[in-house]
Amino acid sequence: MDRFEITYRLFADDQSDAEDRAANIALEDTVEIPRDVVPVGYIEDVVLGKVEAVEQEGEDSWLSRISYHIDAVGHELPQLLNVILGNASILKGVKAIAITANDDIKARFPGAQFGVDGLRKLTGRKSGGYVCPVIKPQGSSSERLAHLCYLTARAGADIVKEDHGLANQDAAPFRDRVKLAAEAVNLANRERANEGETTKSLYFANIGGHSDQVRDLAYYAQDAGAHGILLIPGLFGFDAMNRLAQDTDFNLPIMAHPSHLGPYVLSPDFGYGHGMLFGDLMRLAGADISVFPNHGGRFGFSVAECEEIVSRCRTSGGLGKAILPSPGGGMSIERLPDMKDLYGEDCVYLLGGSLLRYGDKIGDAIKQMRQALDG
Amino acid sequence: MDRFEITYRLFADDQSDAEDRAANIALEDTVEIPRDVVPVGYIEDVVLGKVEAVEQEGEDSWLSRISYHIDAVGHELPQLLNVILGNASILKGVKAIAITANDDIKARFPGAQFGVDGLRKLTGRKSGGYVCPVIKPQGSSSERLAHLCYLTARAGADIVKEDHGLANQDAAPFRDRVKLAAEAVNLANRERANEGETTKSLYFANIGGHSDQVRDLAYYAQDAGAHGILLIPGLFGFDAMNRLAQDTDFNLPIMAHPSHLGPYVLSPDFGYGHGMLFGDLMRLAGADISVFPNHGGRFGFSVAECEEIVSRCRTSGGLGKAILPSPGGGMSIERLPDMKDLYGEDCVYLLGGSLLRYGDKIGDAIKQMRQALDG
Repeated sequence: MDRFEITYRLFADDQSDAEDRAANIALEDTVEIPRDVVPVGYIEDVVLGKVEAVEQEGEDSWLSRISYHIDAVGHELPQLLNVILGNASILKGVKAIAITANDDIKARFPGAQFGVDGLRKLTGRKSGGYVCPVIKPQGSSSERLAHLCYLTARAGADIVKEDHGLANQDAAPFRDRVKLAAEAVNLANRERANEGETTKSLYFANIGGHSDQVRDLAYYAQDAGAHGILLIPGLFGFDAMNRLAQDTDFNLPIMAHPSHLGPYVLSPDFGYGHGMLFGDLMRLAGADISVFPNHGGRFGFSVAECEEIVSRCRTSGGLGKAILPSPGGGMSIERLPDMKDLYGEDCVYLLGGSLLRYGDKIGDAIKQMRQALDG
Repeated sequence: MDRFEITYRLFADDQSDAEDRAANIALEDTVEIPRDVVPVGYIEDVVLGKVEAVEQEGEDSWLSRISYHIDAVGHELPQLLNVILGNASILKGVKAIAITANDDIKARFPGAQFGVDGLRKLTGRKSGGYVCPVIKPQGSSSERLAHLCYLTARAGADIVKEDHGLANQDAAPFRDRVKLAAEAVNLANRERANEGETTKSLYFANIGGHSDQVRDLAYYAQDAGAHGILLIPGLFGFDAMNRLAQDTDFNLPIMAHPSHLGPYVLSPDFGYGHGMLFGDLMRLAGADISVFPNHGGRFGFSVAECEEIVSRCRTSGGLGKAILPSPGGGMSIERLPDMKDLYGEDCVYLLGGSLLRYGDKIGDAIKQMRQALDG
């Protein structure tokens, strides 16, 4: 394929209106000039988006495939997003719902370093869902947070994830906190190994700082003994994540947090489809694990939306490596068996605030999580 | 004030429901744990958001003021946005519509370097709206784009802005293009000065590259003789912009482009208010000029939404310096007189694709723009 394709859902009055809308998107996200002044030759033939199909889907909705040439993108992810849904993000009745990559996209945006298979190797867990407590709340001291890391890791957590609100506040500055937390998890891992366990806990440090410090902070976490990082693409940008994923000197898995991304998916009428944002784009941008709010928690995602996310994360036909979905947002141990039925084994099961009810017996909760997933 | 406040519009069933929703936001965007496990003392008293008021606004809407302490933020903008609308961005029925800063916010996020008054000094234009052609389309050579820069600058453009789709594509790589364009505008400025003109054109280079290159590319533009930069916070993050605005070695004004930000404002039900995003947050993050789609063009903003943006950009009670609104998106010379009536003099008037109809007589269009604004 000479060009890659984006599928948009369009809301329109009729076929003619839908075709006009598609033609306008092809202009808007590439040359951004009226059709009659598009220069003939290279710009019209290559740079301009091309409407490949506009087919009615429902009573007032159409699916349109628009193809783009990599020349309209270049080598950088921000401009790829500009082409996919830059100015068109400001249009109602336009929703980007899927990407069909070509060899150009695959070569320039190869995706995750680790993915589903990589996480099995890193944790040593050959099967079963991943138990993932979230360490919080912000305002706690680094020592307190590190202690919770130790307790959950010691009890068998697969991933010990920092809360996305643990940034670089004075109560627990990033560098102090990450150093202590990594030491705590590595101590727990040594103790587990001494007892003959073949699995280990991976500590994911939340990158909290300025956007131009992301790489330095990620390197610091790596050097301090962290085993992964948590990053918020809705605040730092998708490319910040991708730059780490493609950095051959940075060798930790990346978990993407959905904070500040909600408006992109909450309307059926604009933005991205759930699977496109939390599946396709996370894979494209190098996430190994994509966190999203599970249905029935504090947020309003439907079962179908969650299933679409999971499908797009794990399908073998997607961009780069298959990655791990990670549902969270107000879950409890009681819900884990049902969640396991829905999401299966290649999934990171997040549990946060409710674990704090256990106080220093939080390790008991981790063991109950393990049992709930394995039972 | 010990704390800063965010005003949210909440959609709820009744007063009690609205109060519950407000309390949940105060939890969600700070400690993110159930209320009953919030540790007493510092975390409950300082870190946790506080609901200050919940007042009915309309039949199904309430206005709630929630206060936060700077300790929940720290010193970095990403975490401030996390507190304002991080996880709460994923909630329907919650819209952040205003920020009331306190001294902490003002000290840590001082805003734009130049603003309204600064742009008057930089351009030498003592009064009148700013004429701002947009140079495009992508796919053109650096030489062609630089020639358009020259022609528009020579004819009296106040700001020569690159299209936000001119990134770092092979047809016109960032460094080649910016060097030639800056030379072209500076040549036009010298010729204008020789003819006794007291105003000059400012060339704004669009930052196109990887997110971890933003500073290097901005410095390159400055060294190459550009007079400002265009940056897309929806792709590079608001903090990328703020870091340049607060960098004492970077001394160019910043124009913020709304690409990829649409979903934050398009629904009345979630995200940000128009004035909050394109006014308050742009000021907070150091933009000198905030681009937004004018009513009646290719996008669907209403007159009232545009007026709110302009008011928040320019009000003397806002964050940091007053900044310049910049409406665009399918405007024409014929519309300028009406636009001037609405937006007044401290405004950057964007005209893009329609100028290309003039070909190499684009300078005539610039002169007509000037007349339309001054007439």
